Amino acid sequence: MKRLNVGIIGAGRIGKVHAENLAFRIPQANPLVIADVNQQAAAAVADSCRIPAVVADYHEVLENAEVEAVVICSPTDTHARIVGEAARAGKHIFCEKPIDHSLEKIDQALVEVARAGVKLQVGFNRRFDANFRRVRQAVVNGEIGEPHFVHIISRDPSPPPISYVKVSGGIFLDMTIHDFDMARYLIGKEVEEVYTCGAVRVDPEIGKAGDLDTVLIVLKFEDGTLGTIDNSRKAVYGYDQRVEVFGSQGAIRTENNYPNAAVISGAERIHRDLPLNFFMDRYTESFVTEMQAFINAVLEDKPTPVCGEDGRIPVVMGLAARKSYDQNRPVRLAEITA
Amino acid sequence: MKRLNVGIIGAGRIGKVHAENLAFRIPQANPLVIADVNQQAAAAVADSCRIPAVVADYHEVLENAEVEAVVICSPTDTHARIVGEAARAGKHIFCEKPIDHSLEKIDQALVEVARAGVKLQVGFNRRFDANFRRVRQAVVNGEIGEPHFVHIISRDPSPPPISYVKVSGGIFLDMTIHDFDMARYLIGKEVEEVYTCGAVRVDPEIGKAGDLDTVLIVLKFEDGTLGTIDNSRKAVYGYDQRVEVFGSQGAIRTENNYPNAAVISGAERIHRDLPLNFFMDRYTESFVTEMQAFINAVLEDKPTPVCGEDGRIPVVMGLAARKSYDQNRPVRLAEITA
Amino acid sequence: MKRLNVGIIGAGRIGKVHAENLAFRIPQANPLVIADVNQQAAAAVADSCRIPAVVADYHEVLENAEVEAVVICSPTDTHARIVGEAARAGKHIFCEKPIDHSLEKIDQALVEVARAGVKLQVGFNRRFDANFRRVRQAVVNGEIGEPHFVHIISRDPSPPPISYVKVSGGIFLDMTIHDFDMARYLIGKEVEEVYTCGAVRVDPEIGKAGDLDTVLIVLKFEDGTLGTIDNSRKAVYGYDQRVEVFGSQGAIRTENNYPNAAVISGAERIHRDLPLNFFMDRYTESFVTEMQAFINAVLEDKPTPVCGEDGRIPVVMGLAARKSYDQNRPVRLAEITA
Amino acid sequence: MKRLNVGIIGAGRIGKVHAENLAFRIPQANPLVIADVNQQAAAAVADSCRIPAVVADYHEVLENAEVEAVVICSPTDTHARIVGEAARAGKHIFCEKPIDHSLEKIDQALVEVARAGVKLQVGFNRRFDANFRRVRQAVVNGEIGEPHFVHIISRDPSPPPISYVKVSGGIFLDMTIHDFDMARYLIGKEVEEVYTCGAVRVDPEIGKAGDLDTVLIVLKFEDGTLGTIDNSRKAVYGYDQRVEVFGSQGAIRTENNYPNAAVISGAERIHRDLPLNFFMDRYTESFVTEMQAFINAVLEDKPTPVCGEDGRIPVVMGLAARKSYDQNRPVRLAEITA
Repeated sequence: MKRLNVGIIGAGRIGKVHAENLAFRIPQANPLVIADVNQQAAAAVADSCRIPAVVADYHEVLENAEVEAVVICSPTDTHARIVGEAARAGKHIFCEKPIDHSLEKIDQALVEVARAGVKLQVGFNRRFDANFRRVRQAVVNGEIGEPHFVHIISRDPSPPPISYVKVSGGIFLDMTIHDFDMARYLIGKEVEEVYTCGAVRVDPEIGKAGDLDTVLIVLKFEDGTLGTIDNSRKAVYGYDQRVEVFGSQGAIRTENNYPNAAVISGAERIHRDLPLNFFMDRYTESFVTEMQAFINAVLEDKPTPVCGEDGRIPVVMGLAARKSYDQNRPVRLAEITA
Repeated sequence: MKRLNVGIIGAGRIGKVHAENLAFRIPQANPLVIADVNQQAAAAVADSCRIPAVVADYHEVLENAEVEAVVICSPTDTHARIVGEAARAGKHIFCEKPIDHSLEKIDQALVEVARAGVKLQVGFNRRFDANFRRVRQAVVNGEIGEPHFVHIISRDPSPPPISYVKVSGGIFLDMTIHDFDMARYLIGKEVEEVYTCGAVRVDPEIGKAGDLDTVLIVLKFEDGTLGTIDNSRKAVYGYDQRVEVFGSQGAIRTENNYPNAAVISGAERIHRDLPLNFFMDRYTESFVTEMQAFINAVLEDKPTPVCGEDGRIPVVMGLAARKSYDQNRPVRLAEITA
Repeated sequence: MKRLNVGIIGAGRIGKVHAENLAFRIPQANPLVIADVNQQAAAAVADSCRIPAVVADYHEVLENAEVEAVVICSPTDTHARIVGEAARAGKHIFCEKPIDHSLEKIDQALVEVARAGVKLQVGFNRRFDANFRRVRQAVVNGEIGEPHFVHIISRDPSPPPISYVKVSGGIFLDMTIHDFDMARYLIGKEVEEVYTCGAVRVDPEIGKAGDLDTVLIVLKFEDGTLGTIDNSRKAVYGYDQRVEVFGSQGAIRTENNYPNAAVISGAERIHRDLPLNFFMDRYTESFVTEMQAFINAVLEDKPTPVCGEDGRIPVVMGLAARKSYDQNRPVRLAEITA
Repeated sequence: MKRLNVGIIGAGRIGKVHAENLAFRIPQANPLVIADVNQQAAAAVADSCRIPAVVADYHEVLENAEVEAVVICSPTDTHARIVGEAARAGKHIFCEKPIDHSLEKIDQALVEVARAGVKLQVGFNRRFDANFRRVRQAVVNGEIGEPHFVHIISRDPSPPPISYVKVSGGIFLDMTIHDFDMARYLIGKEVEEVYTCGAVRVDPEIGKAGDLDTVLIVLKFEDGTLGTIDNSRKAVYGYDQRVEVFGSQGAIRTENNYPNAAVISGAERIHRDLPLNFFMDRYTESFVTEMQAFINAVLEDKPTPVCGEDGRIPVVMGLAARKSYDQNRPVRLAEITA
């Protein structure tokens, strides 16, 4: 079996997920080395995943001639730079989202990728979730006719630490960005205009940090489809991830995923356990599938399923959404330039 | 048992519903007379509902000293006038929605009602539906904490005739008006601003008549709650009537109602029958309950549960929604004046 | 509109249900008189249902020449006798189930009915429930192919008073009898053999009265279909009424009915309200439909949908079920004779 | 990390599942060698799972001093013999179900295991499924009070080849055996008596082979709980695996598992995709969890969660069930002796 030699950059939470999947779930992957300035974290992941080498400086990964592809899981503000460096080193690239908060930096990185002719996949893992794939399939197959509405509900179980909120780029670039990608993916068309409203309802500290925690975004697609995204930083019942597409011939919607399919009838109510509570439980399989898709794309020399432009446009949407909120008016994506 | 003598004005589709409920489902009601210029229609309803008198001219109802209350089911453009006349005649009034499309006429009618001191209930029957009542109850009881979002999906199985579209006042006053009322009812707060987008996706003839058939309205409530209403004139799977309220302590949402609770597992799919297809099937019980509430309010001299102001505000919202669509900007309700 | 003059015998709980339906829900029915030794109960029903006459002795109903049909809602031990008398008086008969606990008395009554040529319908209302009708329809239409299994779950919210248990004929004749009828109705075939096991798990007093409160009955149909009935006198979550039929081409099953379709997501669980709790709430519409079917059968001179034999066979099944339990062996229905 | 050296005996369908899980999903397992007379099959599994050694004769596995535990996935008629040999070789043992169809052979094997003091776990993987664990947890925690009924529905998507039917030991030992185990697991009590009925409805060839394809088994537990098992060899809609336990304080039931949580509303019906169709899709995770439990039990020197007696009793139940069918009478388990 042909195997792809992979270097992993970053041994934090998501780096560990990718390392485990590369080591144990994807037979065609051969993780060779993992890099992190936190040597202890990197060593722990290497041990549990049987990765032979650990380095502190990711440049050693880029300089390693055996490494054919890199998986970038470092902090967001380093993504664009490392993408550029990896491209110049001739490595294929899987990069966690977002590439950057700055369109200018994204564009520079994408230029490098194009120049080097390496493959780039951006980590919008939710596209690989079985529920959302089924919705996309229904749209593609015409099971619901022409789409008229798309609704995305995406609520986190609890807000991130304020320290993170301060550097995350704001809710639109940190949280809604997944939903912007989802909207484009499900409908298969571009959004031309957004209108945003929002509030601070969960934690006043989030407001003090200049961000929102409860937002509603209206999307107008090029084909006339209308969409909404509803985000909250805190759903007490856990991770709420649902979509609905309504069209001329029907509708399709998804429910949340649950740890079990048991229903209890008690003296007070009929009930079931809470849905899967966290993205690592909810999207476990999607992380495997996206990485398998990346490895396959490289090994078979095919386009990656989430390209650089797919990484760029949701950032444009996030910037437009914020502008719309600030000015309380609909904003066209064409207004946002690097 | 004390019974209230009622006169019914209008023997069309909704008049027939109210007549049957008054005759067969509400023991405290005593329908005395039904009026319609279409004497044949009125006579047919009177026969099946055992109503003793039929008249062509509704003034005879108003002049009938035995009649204590009237139920106005005539065409929309006569509502405001008849409300005023009935008030002057000292009759308590149940009036189908909307009172009028003109705020000026509504205000004149409400002045007459106030002056006469009679009771007025406007026919927003959906408030009396078991599903939506349960949602309202959850909000009132604090079961979901403070509301942050309300989403209303309201899709008709098929568009009305073009002849109706031309005189209905447009989708916002004819269809969304129910959802504007629902939004106010569920949250128990006023909306301050709306933003609307819309399209013609179902039938180009609707566009030629100057109307829309696919609309999305964003609501901003005085307490910071954000809302959406999604309307389509045509859902091929039938009448789609769902709401969701999300709050600081949880969420509540309703499913559609079905003719039966049977699930079939076949070789191709797991399926169930389509939901109840039409408002007369879906909302059957709510029409009984709203009328029972009106009869009770009169007999027990209590306020009606849907007052004149409840009839007026959704019209303001409808006018604001249209203005927002025309100008593609958020519109404050305060901008709309009689 | 042609209306059938009806006399009602018995003004207890179920008598009141039938009286209200005859008065308010079935336009073709004209309830003329109600009889009960408890004159106060009869008068109260007559008042609320606008029934003109009240009598203490049901014979007056039978002697009333205007009365065309009687609805027998008296205590079970009087059913067979009154059926016979009503038949001799030439009245069409709707009789609550069971006709009697004694096959001999049932047979005598059925002989009288046959001799008089009057129509008889037995009150197995559940056949008229929308859920079970849909299951029957699926079987008839071949939607699930040839039936292989039928499972009936039928659990009461709480046991009847011990005083009732002592005279009810036992759980098989008082409670399971509905499910025996349901099994025959759904499959459309006769049962040849039953095997029963049971226990006293809910209340030891029920055991002391010689009865069971938790029973499981296996049914073997003439066509090879196998069935189970699961009965409990007490389900703390309310009235549990579900069936499933599995066949060569699929399966169909029903869920319980609920007061609303709202689902609440809270911090501890996802939940909904308890199902409709009592047969009068759960089967409200089936009582209307069964009576409408009876009135139609008489007015249109067609066979009633639940005939005398349909009333007799479930009693045979109940006697066989008890014998099986007593002897801990499968018992063929052919072993049970009048 | 301490790892357990494991030898795998049998490289067929289930052997491959266990090999993959040991190789990729269970960090504490170190699969050293795989044995199969079909060398090609063994080599293929070894390659994909990176297992270093392949042998034709399983005795080489038993003689390998490095091997600490064996996983027996050979044909059923070799299980008991290999269990005995492995025990004498001092290896801990995971053995696929059933240990044998003969109680005598099972007892001999269990004597060897006891004498050697090695650990034995029998492959009743369904106990480790999230749905059934949740039901068991509800019973243990008292969430539903004292159990009164347990119902198990277990239907295969399609019958096995007739060649398999002829040697499988019959439906009770080949298919129902899982459900016998499930019944004991869920209730945590022993069954004292069974009553069986059955038929050939799916394929007459199965009948010619002396077996049944449609069976219903009644279980009477020592604590008075009553149970049913419903097995069919063919459910056209796929793998149907549901249970319900009803008790004094409530009920818990499980639904099937689905490939996605999408619901489609079309012009004809509301539908969703078929459930997971095959035991390898449906029970994927349970195979991982059971093997993890075995590895943990050995490494931590704790009892295995499914012991030899747990492997023996379902065979007794299967023999009793067949006897009950043959004689059409309830059969006590005490009647079945080695």
